[in-house]
Amino acid sequence: MDTFFDPASVVVIGASNSPFNLGATICRTIKHFARFPGPVYAVNRKAETVFDCPGYATVTDIPTPVDLAVIIAPAAVVPDFIAQCAAKGIKHVVIESSGFSEGGPKGQTLQHAVDAIAQAHGMRILGPNCLGVLNSRNRFCCFYGIFEEDFANFMRKGSGSVSYIIQSGGIVVIMLESLHTDVVGANKIVSIGNKCDVDEADMIAYYGQDPTTEVIAMYLEDVKDGRKLIDTARGVKKPMLAFKVGRTGEGARAAMSHTAGMAVDDRIFDSACRQAGIIRAQSIAELHSLPKIFITMPPLKGKRIAVFTNSGAFGGITADLLIAAGLSMARLAPETQERLKATGQVFNAANPIDLGPTISMQTFRDIFEILLASGDVDGLLAVPSLWHPVMIEVITELVTQCHGHGKPAAIYTPNAVAKTIGYRTNHQVPLFESPEEAVRALKVSHQHYLYSLWKEAEGLGPKEGENYGFASPGA
Amino acid sequence: MDTFFDPASVVVIGASNSPFNLGATICRTIKHFARFPGPVYAVNRKAETVFDCPGYATVTDIPTPVDLAVIIAPAAVVPDFIAQCAAKGIKHVVIESSGFSEGGPKGQTLQHAVDAIAQAHGMRILGPNCLGVLNSRNRFCCFYGIFEEDFANFMRKGSGSVSYIIQSGGIVVIMLESLHTDVVGANKIVSIGNKCDVDEADMIAYYGQDPTTEVIAMYLEDVKDGRKLIDTARGVKKPMLAFKVGRTGEGARAAMSHTAGMAVDDRIFDSACRQAGIIRAQSIAELHSLPKIFITMPPLKGKRIAVFTNSGAFGGITADLLIAAGLSMARLAPETQERLKATGQVFNAANPIDLGPTISMQTFRDIFEILLASGDVDGLLAVPSLWHPVMIEVITELVTQCHGHGKPAAIYTPNAVAKTIGYRTNHQVPLFESPEEAVRALKVSHQHYLYSLWKEAEGLGPKEGENYGFASPGA
Repeated sequence: MDTFFDPASVVVIGASNSPFNLGATICRTIKHFARFPGPVYAVNRKAETVFDCPGYATVTDIPTPVDLAVIIAPAAVVPDFIAQCAAKGIKHVVIESSGFSEGGPKGQTLQHAVDAIAQAHGMRILGPNCLGVLNSRNRFCCFYGIFEEDFANFMRKGSGSVSYIIQSGGIVVIMLESLHTDVVGANKIVSIGNKCDVDEADMIAYYGQDPTTEVIAMYLEDVKDGRKLIDTARGVKKPMLAFKVGRTGEGARAAMSHTAGMAVDDRIFDSACRQAGIIRAQSIAELHSLPKIFITMPPLKGKRIAVFTNSGAFGGITADLLIAAGLSMARLAPETQERLKATGQVFNAANPIDLGPTISMQTFRDIFEILLASGDVDGLLAVPSLWHPVMIEVITELVTQCHGHGKPAAIYTPNAVAKTIGYRTNHQVPLFESPEEAVRALKVSHQHYLYSLWKEAEGLGPKEGENYGFASPGA
Repeated sequence: MDTFFDPASVVVIGASNSPFNLGATICRTIKHFARFPGPVYAVNRKAETVFDCPGYATVTDIPTPVDLAVIIAPAAVVPDFIAQCAAKGIKHVVIESSGFSEGGPKGQTLQHAVDAIAQAHGMRILGPNCLGVLNSRNRFCCFYGIFEEDFANFMRKGSGSVSYIIQSGGIVVIMLESLHTDVVGANKIVSIGNKCDVDEADMIAYYGQDPTTEVIAMYLEDVKDGRKLIDTARGVKKPMLAFKVGRTGEGARAAMSHTAGMAVDDRIFDSACRQAGIIRAQSIAELHSLPKIFITMPPLKGKRIAVFTNSGAFGGITADLLIAAGLSMARLAPETQERLKATGQVFNAANPIDLGPTISMQTFRDIFEILLASGDVDGLLAVPSLWHPVMIEVITELVTQCHGHGKPAAIYTPNAVAKTIGYRTNHQVPLFESPEEAVRALKVSHQHYLYSLWKEAEGLGPKEGENYGFASPGA
């Protein structure tokens, strides 16, 4: 699987100098934007060079060995090119072209032809109908149609530790754009499309052992092999977040036309996630917003949350959300409340802790220390209004103290979203964009902690004697 | 009630030149930021002038008549000042001080003293424990602690048509900040605090007949007189959105300590809203995000939604959301699908309509015309990716066509939130920030449409012979 993310040489099949040729954008990205160090070739009828990638009429004409083939030729000619790749000894192929299983009986016939050749030669196929891969570590990227500015922005952000498995190219763009204004970044991204061969389970296994991946996030339109997904994911202890389209019949039908998926009853998928220790994301936004709770904070080991705010209204709002999420409001011991009152700045020392308009760093430091040290508190929901510049220092201090105590804080600044995102980007503090999102972050942190305990107790790996899966798709 | 929003003269009681005096910030706001044209006085022990507002030791010392008193003196002396206001003939008083019903038995005694004087002299009281009012039309604002830059930003945004009733000052700030990056603006804002006299029902009645208010949005921590709320709101046909804290016991307890509220069973409030034709907001963000569907788009008169996107993944995502919201995917007649196919740019002509990477304005114009003219479609959920500059023109064209056909579109651009907000602010197009929010907008548009029909049929005004209300608070 490493070859998909770190090939030594690449051929882009279907890249030419014709106007609007998508293959040419792949050559441009690999050669010019990513400044790929190895040889990159183009294959097209005229054997023409494309963005400095030497051109050949067939794959077998290429004089040196090739690690990875990226195909974006029309579906009808893809089986021929796969055969050329086989003859050339290429074992890793990305098929970005569409028009296979999602394109009716004709497409399915082409798919079968591709499958037969690949299986006979032990080739691994990514796609078809996908964007391919992006690896932030070595800058390798074979996405088509990417703009130079977007690529540069993404690379400027630097390499992060969230790796993505995304069934649709459009979602890739939202993730990249959104992470650019967040504190965590993407590590590897794979767009699996119709997943005729490499599927989400293969990628989970790969990311599971990848040393630079801390969190795995998935956008799925269907699951073909539920048993494989469960068995693989059970063996992975990293946080895994999955959003799945098709929770309703209408949604599933729409997804089927998009990436050739198969309707799966949502309750079956839900059960699979629980068996596998995968957390279900409730929106696509959660795939980029929630990973930061895992990466920037210790896990939430219990359910008792202390709410800390300097905006009184949020005491009630957050209490409602915490209870609805199945967490609880920490009951502070009388001595803890006395210590809070002794700071002289607390309107309400019972949870929620409502603070006056102080700007004393020492007061904040004291209050965080009291709350995080309390045996009655498992984590904080902090709602500090950004009304004064000192509040950014206060938030940075809170993050430090959380690590000192091994307890997390989900932080929401009750300001306009644009302002919050601006502060988060400029000061690199892990801010959530709504109280709902902050509470979800605590919830998933605890959920993952429980999954970890369970996997620890079972000694990792697949559990014997169970028989879940998607025996009756759509049932 | 007009006097609260448009007084001819004002006295700020408790404004002095002491450090950190909050009353002084009110004088500064009224006199300097708002450039209030009438006389503004200060009352303080030293009779000192504050930010150019002539000072007096008592209200009765002021030589000319006064319309409105704003009190921010300590709670203990407020009854005395109320008596002075009564003697001076002032009929409208804003009490911004805290320490009344939310402050235990002592505060309650002070509250009774205030009530007795006010009732004896026919005075109307706003507060206590509130921020007062802001009127964008004449710039009048008696909020304490507001920064010059925030006030200037707000006024630069210009006057809008959403009027707010907000029980907590902290929420006011989020609304102002958030509307600054949206296409609609605030008209009037009132912070009602403990609402010892003027309550949400009084304000609904006032905004209901206010010619510049189109949408009424409320943040409530409690409801004391449910019967009054229902009877008043039944008589108002404008869209009313309400977010209420205290949906859980913990949330209600937190809110009680904040603005002296009383726990009300959430189901009772929910029933009251349905009786009154008030739409419940599911988050505080909805109070600023949803009004634009009422102001910038025609109402959604049916449930059949056509989804239009140039990002294939969103067909499935939005179909799931629409079904979950109780709306439906429009079934397009074969001739409609043929017309869509004839544009030559549509991947999928059945709903969801998935478009290729075209940048032809005429294609977009044709597709919008086909969909909006279809008798099978009540409204659109449009998900146009901002991948090319022409997309902003496309969105502007869609808004125009929606008005031509009397059908709404909720528009979500599948990009990072910061980018969407930037486009919304700079181009003044009504973009929602998530697919969830766009679907909620369609849902509430239809909900309000149904409420309007029902109020129309009943000939407006309170309905006889019903007896709802909060007979058993907390039951």
